[in-house]
Amino acid sequence: AQSSVTLYGKVDLAFSKATGTKDKQIADNNASRIGLKGSEDLGNGLSAFFKLESQLAADMGTTTVAKDGSSTFWNRWSSVGLAHSKYGSLQLGHMENGAWDTQTAFDPWGGDTVAQLRDVGATLYNDATGKVTANRRLDNSVRYDLSMNGFKLAASYAEKLGGKSNPFAIGGNYTMGPLMVGLAYEKIAKATTGQSDDRIVSGGASYDFGVAKLMASYSDGRTVADDKVKGFIVGATAPYGAFKFKVGYSQSKTELAAGGNGTFKKAAVGGEYNLSKRTKLYADYAHISGDLTTAQDDNKNAYDFGLSHAF
Amino acid sequence: AQSSVTLYGKVDLAFSKATGTKDKQIADNNASRIGLKGSEDLGNGLSAFFKLESQLAADMGTTTVAKDGSSTFWNRWSSVGLAHSKYGSLQLGHMENGAWDTQTAFDPWGGDTVAQLRDVGATLYNDATGKVTANRRLDNSVRYDLSMNGFKLAASYAEKLGGKSNPFAIGGNYTMGPLMVGLAYEKIAKATTGQSDDRIVSGGASYDFGVAKLMASYSDGRTVADDKVKGFIVGATAPYGAFKFKVGYSQSKTELAAGGNGTFKKAAVGGEYNLSKRTKLYADYAHISGDLTTAQDDNKNAYDFGLSHAF
Amino acid sequence: AQSSVTLYGKVDLAFSKATGTKDKQIADNNASRIGLKGSEDLGNGLSAFFKLESQLAADMGTTTVAKDGSSTFWNRWSSVGLAHSKYGSLQLGHMENGAWDTQTAFDPWGGDTVAQLRDVGATLYNDATGKVTANRRLDNSVRYDLSMNGFKLAASYAEKLGGKSNPFAIGGNYTMGPLMVGLAYEKIAKATTGQSDDRIVSGGASYDFGVAKLMASYSDGRTVADDKVKGFIVGATAPYGAFKFKVGYSQSKTELAAGGNGTFKKAAVGGEYNLSKRTKLYADYAHISGDLTTAQDDNKNAYDFGLSHAF
Repeated sequence: AQSSVTLYGKVDLAFSKATGTKDKQIADNNASRIGLKGSEDLGNGLSAFFKLESQLAADMGTTTVAKDGSSTFWNRWSSVGLAHSKYGSLQLGHMENGAWDTQTAFDPWGGDTVAQLRDVGATLYNDATGKVTANRRLDNSVRYDLSMNGFKLAASYAEKLGGKSNPFAIGGNYTMGPLMVGLAYEKIAKATTGQSDDRIVSGGASYDFGVAKLMASYSDGRTVADDKVKGFIVGATAPYGAFKFKVGYSQSKTELAAGGNGTFKKAAVGGEYNLSKRTKLYADYAHISGDLTTAQDDNKNAYDFGLSHAF
Repeated sequence: AQSSVTLYGKVDLAFSKATGTKDKQIADNNASRIGLKGSEDLGNGLSAFFKLESQLAADMGTTTVAKDGSSTFWNRWSSVGLAHSKYGSLQLGHMENGAWDTQTAFDPWGGDTVAQLRDVGATLYNDATGKVTANRRLDNSVRYDLSMNGFKLAASYAEKLGGKSNPFAIGGNYTMGPLMVGLAYEKIAKATTGQSDDRIVSGGASYDFGVAKLMASYSDGRTVADDKVKGFIVGATAPYGAFKFKVGYSQSKTELAAGGNGTFKKAAVGGEYNLSKRTKLYADYAHISGDLTTAQDDNKNAYDFGLSHAF
Repeated sequence: AQSSVTLYGKVDLAFSKATGTKDKQIADNNASRIGLKGSEDLGNGLSAFFKLESQLAADMGTTTVAKDGSSTFWNRWSSVGLAHSKYGSLQLGHMENGAWDTQTAFDPWGGDTVAQLRDVGATLYNDATGKVTANRRLDNSVRYDLSMNGFKLAASYAEKLGGKSNPFAIGGNYTMGPLMVGLAYEKIAKATTGQSDDRIVSGGASYDFGVAKLMASYSDGRTVADDKVKGFIVGATAPYGAFKFKVGYSQSKTELAAGGNGTFKKAAVGGEYNLSKRTKLYADYAHISGDLTTAQDDNKNAYDFGLSHAF
């Protein structure tokens, strides 16, 4: 029962250009962070644990300040909970929602870098209202996690706070040898009574052939305005010594409730070179197209060349 | 003389309801925090030390931002000082005032949870002007601490800053076997010249009978508006294996300088179950009443059920 | 390749009075800070490293909040980079510019305390426009460092961001036995097209005679308004057991482009007593004079008496 705090983190910076701009920048695209975590064995398979994690933009040394006069310094995670070796863990606080991991598992870039496909193919997107900001992290929430025989489950439920309904998210995946399948459902709190809830269901699978891992996922959502959004991601990663290559394509199709529809496409290719288990160099290129992008022809591409170091 | 920084903290969250509202929430009522501290032996009984402590609201991951464009991240404590094994310690910085510990020592809840009695029976309170915010922590202050033969003393003196007088606070307590007695005086800086200073003197005692510890304290204060405030706390705590039960009652009576007076009452009961030395579950219930509360009949009660984990 | 994070810092507070005011305060004049750093050996002389450093004002527990709604918590340094044992290190992020160390090396106070001479003799200063805020730290910058055979080089290049040119700074110094010589050039980004860049070149030398170390430096700069600024510092430090005494004089002369000129002078004396390698007491006195100070006769002096503890 002695104190054992682990201080961990990641600093990741890249020379990069985003879509929709001609500016080339040094940018923190991959959420540099520091965190504290610890757990205490309470006996009988029970343990108590906490986790505090803070994101920073390492290109400027900044952290987040909320508009209401408080700083969400621990903006990635702040929780305390109890875990049982068999029955899973229950925690309270500000946490990533239970669907996130499964939604992200079938993106070759795992939601990182300018090449990530998750932001097109596994998110509610609507040209008329702009991208729906997913409740990636939920304030004042309860989260349950279970990991058992290759099966992983995470479920989150949160207070309404300013919204009109309770955010809820659940995701699960099952790994059997080279195969992984996953399914996730996320309901985002609506802001106005009488609306529907933003909601999205996503399913996917990956198979590791050794020489390469193939993956695909499909998402089907509906916004508060009753616009229908369907998206998919297909991709592959291939290790080659210390290298890992990535390629993928994603698409999102929106049918507006008011009539009309449009498509948003993203294709990407990239690679990383692992200097160690904790440190890597990476380079990526992505191109967007479709009816729903307002980017000009000459800035529909994005690239990055970066260094990531975890500790 | 080598570096030895200790990283410590607490994460504490509860399902709770406060008085004056019907909202049931996940709330951080007990000041989750992280801190850094260290000391260095300089020889001849002398040592140098520092302490930095930051509070967070773990339900949302937020820390405090002040209105003047600075973030009081180290809002609980930031100091550097010298300590002598015999003659006590002297430190400079942003610190808890010297009266706080003694004012809080005779509250069965020690100033924590929705059941704390300190906020009624050991604080300046005035229905006409609202609760006087005690200068719990003093900016730009000097603090002296002495601990000797069961006797503990703490004294603080601070710059005026925006105020018109220097905040000053002193508290002392003496422990002899099962008996503890304490006395504290706190003068809060007045904001306007010509006013009196907010000030409060508190005295109390506790006796540990083994099966239970009884405690009582009395406070007598006067606000800048010359309203007189008298309060008391009576309470008991009783250990029972890994359990600890708590019960108490506190009252505050205000005589307005302009004439008229009123009473504010709080009764509370609670218990905690220690899962380890560092981790506990707790539950509390409190009820307020009296002339000075504006809470409606149906929300004069408060409760919490929480988990607290220190590291 | 295992994790090895070092948590380090300094807390430094003083009773002090600045020039231009009669207020005596408890003040944090020397940048109290906490930091995290670590490096990982990648083999073949290569290593990866990161550094995150946050300044605090320990008299109030505050950190910096920027106006744009972000908190520059890691305001002193946030970077990630690769280092080679022979060819130096390259890092990206928010960092001190490459000229700073050399500019500061010939100030007996190293840019610290109210007695520092750097702020007069090695900075662009102009009574008409006020002191030019040097880009001490550069956002979105690249920095190269090389240390070899007594020779040290640091160079920084940064994005324009809001400015109209790219900040650039380079500094180098060479140490041979008791002698050290240094040269630095800094170009600060201009805010408006058509202006010149703020720029300053500084050179200096120090010689350690054992009983005392003598040092002198000269700076020559030009502001965006084409005002010419020339400054110098002369000083000495002398160790005596656990004591170290410091004395120095600096001067800055400005020729306004619009005609007219003026002089700013600062003389200072001080001493420190090292309680250990990490902890010291210090006292300083400084006096300013000249055409360019608007301070009244009775507040042209400054002093401090402080405690500094590093961990």
